[in-house]
This record gives sequence, C-alpha cells and structure tokens, in this order.
Amino acid sequence: MPAIDPERAPTAVRAHLAAAAQRIDSELDRRLAIPGALGPNDAERRLREAMRYAVLGGGKRLRPALLLAAAQACRGSIERALPAAAAVELLHAYTLVHDDLPAMDDDAVRRGRATVHIAYGEGTAILAGDGLLTAAFAALADLGDDAAAAVTALATAAGPGALLGGQARDLALDGAEPALSEVELIHSGKTGALFSAAAELGAITAKAPRSAQRALRAYGMAVGIAFQHADDSDDGELPGLAEMAQTRRNELALEAINATTELAEPGLLAELARWIGGI
Amino acid sequence: MPAIDPERAPTAVRAHLAAAAQRIDSELDRRLAIPGALGPNDAERRLREAMRYAVLGGGKRLRPALLLAAAQACRGSIERALPAAAAVELLHAYTLVHDDLPAMDDDAVRRGRATVHIAYGEGTAILAGDGLLTAAFAALADLGDDAAAAVTALATAAGPGALLGGQARDLALDGAEPALSEVELIHSGKTGALFSAAAELGAITAKAPRSAQRALRAYGMAVGIAFQHADDSDDGELPGLAEMAQTRRNELALEAINATTELAEPGLLAELARWIGGI
Repeated sequence: MPAIDPERAPTAVRAHLAAAAQRIDSELDRRLAIPGALGPNDAERRLREAMRYAVLGGGKRLRPALLLAAAQACRGSIERALPAAAAVELLHAYTLVHDDLPAMDDDAVRRGRATVHIAYGEGTAILAGDGLLTAAFAALADLGDDAAAAVTALATAAGPGALLGGQARDLALDGAEPALSEVELIHSGKTGALFSAAAELGAITAKAPRSAQRALRAYGMAVGIAFQHADDSDDGELPGLAEMAQTRRNELALEAINATTELAEPGLLAELARWIGGI
Repeated sequence: MPAIDPERAPTAVRAHLAAAAQRIDSELDRRLAIPGALGPNDAERRLREAMRYAVLGGGKRLRPALLLAAAQACRGSIERALPAAAAVELLHAYTLVHDDLPAMDDDAVRRGRATVHIAYGEGTAILAGDGLLTAAFAALADLGDDAAAAVTALATAAGPGALLGGQARDLALDGAEPALSEVELIHSGKTGALFSAAAELGAITAKAPRSAQRALRAYGMAVGIAFQHADDSDDGELPGLAEMAQTRRNELALEAINATTELAEPGLLAELARWIGGI
C-alpha cells in the first residue's frame, strides 16, 4: 500500500499542501510567540517552549490543509479560514502530546525527535497538551460571529463522543488485536472526527449553507478513516487486515468524492480524496 | 484565620451560594449526561463516568456562584449566565484532575474520596481532564453572540499566561519554600485568573459595558488571590507567612469592593468579598 507521502502526491495536491503548510506554519508561529518579558529560567517560558516544540517540529499539516481546501471548495477566503486551520492543528498536536505520555502509549520518539515528556518532563508535557487544547479554542474566538458554531464543531469532534472516546477505546484494547469493525470505530473517533470537523470548519468560515457543512462533515469523516487505514499500514500494524483495509480505503475515498459533488468547486477535494484513498 | 466555610457565611452569601450550587449542579448533571446507547463495559462510558466523578462529587461551586453574582450585579439573567457558570466549574474540575496526577502533585485523595487517577487509572484521568476542558468551551458556545468574547476570556485565564503558567511555576518550585511575592504570582495564575474570568464572564453574559467587564475582572482577581491565601492557611501551608497573608487577604477584599462601586447592584459582590477576605 503506498505511503501517504506529500512528495509523491499529484501536482495540484502537492502545490496545495505546500502553500497551505507555509501559511499554517507562520500562523502557528505567531500564535505561539513567547512574550519577551519572560526571563530565560521562567517556568512559564519553559512551558511555552514545550508547546512550540510540540507544534513546530514538522508534521504534514494535513488537517488544516484539508480545512483550507474545504473553505476554497465553498468559495471562502483562506484568510478568514486561517484561525480555524490553526485551531485544528493545535488540537491535533495536543492529542499527540497526551497520547505519547507514559500512562497512554508511552512513546519516546515522534517524527524522529524526543517526545515532549522525554524532552521537557512529564508534568510539563501534561500542561503543554492542556495549553495547546486551550489555544485551539482561543484561535476559534477570532472567527467572531462564527465562533459559536466553530467551537461546537471542534468540541464535538474533540469530546468523549468522538476523539476522546476513540482514545479511551484504544487504551482499553491494551495490546489486543481488534476486529476491522472495532478498528474503524477507533479510527472514526481518533482520526475521522477531527478530519470531519476540519472540513466542516472550512464550510463554516466560508459561511456556506448547512447542506454544504453536512456534506463536508461526511467528506472529512471518510477521508479521515481512509487516512488512518493507510497510516496504520505504513506503521506495519494490522498485517492480517492489510488487504481488507486497502479495499475499505478505496471505498471510503469514493464515498468522500460522492459527498462533495454539490459544492461550488469540489475539484481539489476530489484530488485529495483520491490521493489519501490510494486510487 | 477563619476557614472559607459556606455554612458560616453571612445569611445573604449563604443563601446565594446554596441557590447557585443547586442551579449549577443540575446544569452540570445535564451537560455530563451519559448517552443511553453506550453498553455497560464501553470504554467511552467509563471515560464519561470518570468525568462525572470528577465534577459531581461535591465542591463549593464558588467560581460559578461568583459568576452568577457578577451577572446579577450587572442586572443580567441567571438563565443566560448558566452555560458560562458551568464552563468555569468544568474548567476548575479539569485543573484538579490533572493537578492530582502522579507527574504533578501526586494526590490520592480529594474531598474525602479517591482522586480520578486512583479510581479510574492514570490514562483515563488524563483523558477525563481533557474532556472536561473541552466541555468547558463547548458550554460557552451556547452563548451565541457572546461566545467569541467568552471563549477569549476563559482561554486567556486558562492559558500559559495565567492558570497553566501558575501550575508550571508551582511544579518548578518542587517543594521549595517560596517568598510571599512568588506565592502571590502563583496564586494570581492558579486561582486569581479563573476567579477573574468568572466575574468577567458574568458581565459578558449580562451584556454589560466594557468598563463593567474590566471592573469585574479586577474584582475577581483580588477575591481569587484572597481566597487562595485563606485556602492555603486552612491547609496549614506557609506557617511563617500566615500573618502577612492575613493582612494581604483583608487588603485584597477592600480592593475587590472598591472595584465594584460603579456597578448597578454591587451589594452581594461586596458581601462575598468581605466573607472571602475574612473581614
């Protein structure tokens, strides 16, 4: 199964991902700026450094890039969508920091670097994750009139009915080999929900009608689960399920494409879905 | 130094606290309801139970009661203020769950019961805290037009520049005896910021003018630091500083009362400040 590698994506997808990553990185850098007044040994500075370390150490920025593509599909502006794009990436980064903790997955390395709790200590890692989650909602407040709808969308995706429920199910597996249906329930919570919220938030920032918000929610969920199937296979997980997962991944991409046909400009979203779906 | 005990508060304060706690408890109970569709062994159910355990096991509900009093002082409605009141209590509960973790204060008992990580395991406690923080912002989305201002107020108080910075400073002390000025810096972050946001949120939900929001922010900060001085002395901490802290506590109460003189109905807020300030 081909890896989800932006370098090997079709031209239009590659161009969008590169441009989006640049905008998002500078938005994140600005939002996580460290106040100059803090002394070099200040505990608050250390906490803020841990937050920056967690967010600015690379990453494909797939979720915010999807959000910007969804906004464009509804003829919305990138500028207006940027706070929401920052929010989904901050939220994603928080889940990684807390996921890596000893009491969760206990991972020492992520993206080729020490995880936050290895680099900064466990207490600071817990606080840094908390700070990133808080910063995600703070970013949404910049949407003004649309803040209430945006907060509801992100909080629903991030809550126990979705993302945190997926984490809890994953934690409860405790190393057991899950069935494909169980895998997908975990995927829909852990990954699908945030992809889904990202696409929906693109529509919200574009002030698109409810039907477009619903369509993009469905698109994001399908693409998110397809992405997680591909990501698991890259990690060498689930060897017995690899073929079934590949078939499912293709199906999900088609489902995603079908969801977007009524949007104003669905072209880029379809290309993204084909790339993530491996078709 | 007298304990902060609602049972021994003056009549008007006691009546307000009792009525507020009742409204807030039923609002929290509703917001943390467990969906009926979840099976008895579902990992999501267990996570939701941990969230309820953390929030619904007692507590004086001081922060939300202060928020409701601030709304009333601006002639706002209790009904409109309730989502914000729930938000500050959810946020407070999340800080306790994460504070009690082994990597933080490592506390096994709170309010006479096992802490969340003792009762539900460390992984679930991390997720439950995350869920409560998320639920706090979700509650603010119910404020509609005022959601953006409310999210900014709460996120600012909860972020690294305030609450999380206070936690980080506390963590960095690592058992060392701090000076009174350092104590107050930690207090202003760990406790003052959320009291301050609570009072400000009361003004926001009442659609009070900016001058009233500012006044209530100052009121909340002073009352919050005074409360923490009293709470520390109840816990038997800082024995060498007890007298200085008592003087400071009285001063802070007067500062708080001074901040509210321009509000429409400052009476109850002044009584609350006198009670918390021990004067």
